Amino acid sequence: MIGHHIILDLYCNNNLKLKNVETVQYILNKVVSELTLLKVSESYKQFEPYGATGFILLEESHISIHTWPEFNFAAIDVFSCKPINKDIIIELLSDFFETNNIHVNSIQRGSILN
Amino acid sequence: MIGHHIILDLYCNNNLKLKNVETVQYILNKVVSELTLLKVSESYKQFEPYGATGFILLEESHISIHTWPEFNFAAIDVFSCKPINKDIIIELLSDFFETNNIHVNSIQRGSILN
Repeated sequence: MIGHHIILDLYCNNNLKLKNVETVQYILNKVVSELTLLKVSESYKQFEPYGATGFILLEESHISIHTWPEFNFAAIDVFSCKPINKDIIIELLSDFFETNNIHVNSIQRGSILN
Repeated sequence: MIGHHIILDLYCNNNLKLKNVETVQYILNKVVSELTLLKVSESYKQFEPYGATGFILLEESHISIHTWPEFNFAAIDVFSCKPINKDIIIELLSDFFETNNIHVNSIQRGSILN
């Protein structure tokens, strides 16, 4: 097994933090720092009238977020070649977006390899 | 349902095209153009002595690749909010990396939404 891919579909009641790039950028960087991952580069885009998308390329792989405020929804991925604690990710996102409605799917990448 | 996430674990016999950023950048852009997706930005990193990682942020979400030439392995993701033909992706990757050993996982993101 090569990589740990945590796939999170987040549904919240308040879409305020899903609307703008600034909050999206903040929470991605918060996850990266809490997991002590190493940033290579990052890129974001603000959609009009609202909605944001962003990714951070990591030494360990990547983290991404795409938001749909009109559906109170965000799709978040954390992919790392080093072990990561998904409970930390869930807690950070749950606290920040004020929701417990996060559907989590953990996938092992390169699963046929040792 | 909000997004189509195609997760591909690719195993090949020849790691030549997994080693360098140039080939990785080429194939990501090829997939983007064949699927007529719209690029926002892209970022890559060359690892030493070999191995590459890259990401294209799209209007429709993202595409990423991370390679481990030492295992003849690449992890590739295509995530789009518009319908995408996964058979086109598989054919492009299969032809380029000269392998039929591609494990594909299709995930619907935001699946509890209409």
